[in-house]
Amino acid sequence: MTIAAAEARALDLAAGFLDAIRDGSLDAPGVTRASYGAGERLAHARAREAAEGLGLEIRVDPIGTLSMTLPGTDRSLPAGIIGSHADSVPHGGNFDGAAGVAMGLAVAARLRHLDRRLDRDLTVLAIRAEEMVWFPANYLGSRAAFGLLPREAPDTLRRADSGRSLAEHMAEEGFDPDFIRQGRASLDAARIAWFLEPHIEQGPVLVEAGLPAGIVTGIRGSLRHRNCRAIGQDAHAGGAPRRNRRDAVIAAARLVAGLDDLWTAEEAAGADLVCTIGEFCTDATRHAPTRVPGEVRFTLDIRSEDVATLARAEAWLAQAATEAQARNGVAIDYGPALHVPPALMDPRLRAALGAAAAEAGIPTMPIASGGGHDCATFAGQGVPSAMLFIRNDGGSHNPAEAMEMDDFAAAFRIAAGAVERFG
Amino acid sequence: MTIAAAEARALDLAAGFLDAIRDGSLDAPGVTRASYGAGERLAHARAREAAEGLGLEIRVDPIGTLSMTLPGTDRSLPAGIIGSHADSVPHGGNFDGAAGVAMGLAVAARLRHLDRRLDRDLTVLAIRAEEMVWFPANYLGSRAAFGLLPREAPDTLRRADSGRSLAEHMAEEGFDPDFIRQGRASLDAARIAWFLEPHIEQGPVLVEAGLPAGIVTGIRGSLRHRNCRAIGQDAHAGGAPRRNRRDAVIAAARLVAGLDDLWTAEEAAGADLVCTIGEFCTDATRHAPTRVPGEVRFTLDIRSEDVATLARAEAWLAQAATEAQARNGVAIDYGPALHVPPALMDPRLRAALGAAAAEAGIPTMPIASGGGHDCATFAGQGVPSAMLFIRNDGGSHNPAEAMEMDDFAAAFRIAAGAVERFG
Repeated sequence: MTIAAAEARALDLAAGFLDAIRDGSLDAPGVTRASYGAGERLAHARAREAAEGLGLEIRVDPIGTLSMTLPGTDRSLPAGIIGSHADSVPHGGNFDGAAGVAMGLAVAARLRHLDRRLDRDLTVLAIRAEEMVWFPANYLGSRAAFGLLPREAPDTLRRADSGRSLAEHMAEEGFDPDFIRQGRASLDAARIAWFLEPHIEQGPVLVEAGLPAGIVTGIRGSLRHRNCRAIGQDAHAGGAPRRNRRDAVIAAARLVAGLDDLWTAEEAAGADLVCTIGEFCTDATRHAPTRVPGEVRFTLDIRSEDVATLARAEAWLAQAATEAQARNGVAIDYGPALHVPPALMDPRLRAALGAAAAEAGIPTMPIASGGGHDCATFAGQGVPSAMLFIRNDGGSHNPAEAMEMDDFAAAFRIAAGAVERFG
Repeated sequence: MTIAAAEARALDLAAGFLDAIRDGSLDAPGVTRASYGAGERLAHARAREAAEGLGLEIRVDPIGTLSMTLPGTDRSLPAGIIGSHADSVPHGGNFDGAAGVAMGLAVAARLRHLDRRLDRDLTVLAIRAEEMVWFPANYLGSRAAFGLLPREAPDTLRRADSGRSLAEHMAEEGFDPDFIRQGRASLDAARIAWFLEPHIEQGPVLVEAGLPAGIVTGIRGSLRHRNCRAIGQDAHAGGAPRRNRRDAVIAAARLVAGLDDLWTAEEAAGADLVCTIGEFCTDATRHAPTRVPGEVRFTLDIRSEDVATLARAEAWLAQAATEAQARNGVAIDYGPALHVPPALMDPRLRAALGAAAAEAGIPTMPIASGGGHDCATFAGQGVPSAMLFIRNDGGSHNPAEAMEMDDFAAAFRIAAGAVERFG
């Protein structure tokens, strides 16, 4: 078979897989593939069918991670892995996660159709439970496969929609929560030569740059506070003079404006930083247009590729709380913090992706990943890791997500060339 | 009867009235006396009974305003009026409004027990429907009595709790909405020599100053926007770079911080201003900790004794909206504006109140009224008007409101002396 024919068949396979899982998980608007739920089950089943059609070796670990392996010529070598997750947010787009599984299948199919084998095994991986909207834990599926989850996680984590435990949802899908409770692992960093995660871009950078793909420099770490409170005191809007007010909205708004100033200054100094206050609400049970607001609840999501930048932001928050108390008599309680360390992508893999793109005549750019990805788990375990972003309009985590299959094909040609260069 | 005995009986009458209406409108925590509802009806009935016991002339106009008159020696003279409203917010305190009616009854009772008559008629007035929480119109009852409400008001205003029209609620209480529809009036500024509204203070100023009463300098006007929106665009918290974000929370928070700066500067320059952002909420149906917020709804309540200060604040808001668009790509839509002009209290009446306080040996202070009061309607009609604030702990519009009867008694001695000096 010619290379062109093999690549066309590989892309058909990927497109067929993506169409099938969209049809099977439609939940207008968009698709819903809950972690350890029906949509994710369907996506894993379709991936497995496609892999079986290619004659790949199938393995499912006790927590449902699906490995589909094209054997290498020397099976004693650590494997190369390409893949991503198969779950989605509620009413999300079809490609966030699934495009990476489809890409892995396409790369394996191309090699199969060309009757080529790499030196090492090439494993296409479909990971479980990446979208944090379901269970409140980062990279749940990949961390579980590496044995990194706390042993109590199956019994303490509850799915946001059902309120039922991870253990219950795993058992319902035929998997074994004792795997986590006993601290076991199915992935071993010493047996992985490299990990490549193709993924749609979640921002507009590639669309604006007019480029089909980007080579990721690093995955931002984060500092998150989901339950911040500004606590002042209710008072009558007309009667209370300024000096007596403990206005929670003014104090919290000043904190937000100050954080935006910090962000501006950090960015001007060349640091990588993004800050999001996604929720900010006075208490609907007692707020009123003519009442000085005594309480605000808000969230903080602060991300950077650089640990030191995150540390500076954290120190700034402590200082801002002290100022709110002094200036407005308002106590800022940030609640629990969730720290996720940044992950740098492997320079050798990045160079190989760049060389493969150049050879295929496909223009790319270096790009930071703002969102977190399973790839960060692999990098954190010392596995040389890389990500390839595919142009995508409309953002992700919403039904307007819009990846073109032409861009998928361009990224596929880069990935196919890169896995042969990774060695 | 001695003056001391007459004043003791007058204060007993006031205390009995206040106790009776509390008992009759209990709605734990606090009391509820809805405009044109059961609690207000009860308060008017108890006032009327007390007035009948004093032999005052009773008149009820077609919208339920209750006049209780001690005839003067020359009935051709314009009358003096003392009183306030009798409704309350839901689960409010017992004294906001009612203390002014009680004070009027006590002043009339004292004159009656001393067998004194003023030259002019002294009318104790129980006004309807002052608390804006029920019907969305300022000073509804006093404006209706002066014929100042729009003719369509009975049919367009709906009570917040029932959703039913003002006309329905008026008819249910036995009153005539055609009075408003036909633009009629029961109060005529040309026939009113002066108006005195005693009222509990709604802020903590007298408590902090350790004074039982304050002589009001003016009633703040206001600029209110109850339906402000900051409209940006939702985006992924990680993927969207700063330059692409149209973050509604950051834009609205900067506006709030800027308004607080304006307030600080105005106050430093000696201007009277208070600003309240009582409600500030991202959209609960689509906000999330990891999503750049595309919309915020907020309220603005800006008050000042000075028209020019309000005008400067309004101009600043327009400029702030332009800046939010330029800086953050966020449109600020303030929605409809409600303007209430400030009202200055009459200097001669203020001087008479001060002289009466000095004669009684009761220390007072000048004080601005942050909240709006029916007295502003009288002042707006050219009636020489004054307010006497009574010390009150715990603020108003809540069940923690706490006026001491000793402070009521002190204010009563001022009011009783003042009405004889007003002439």
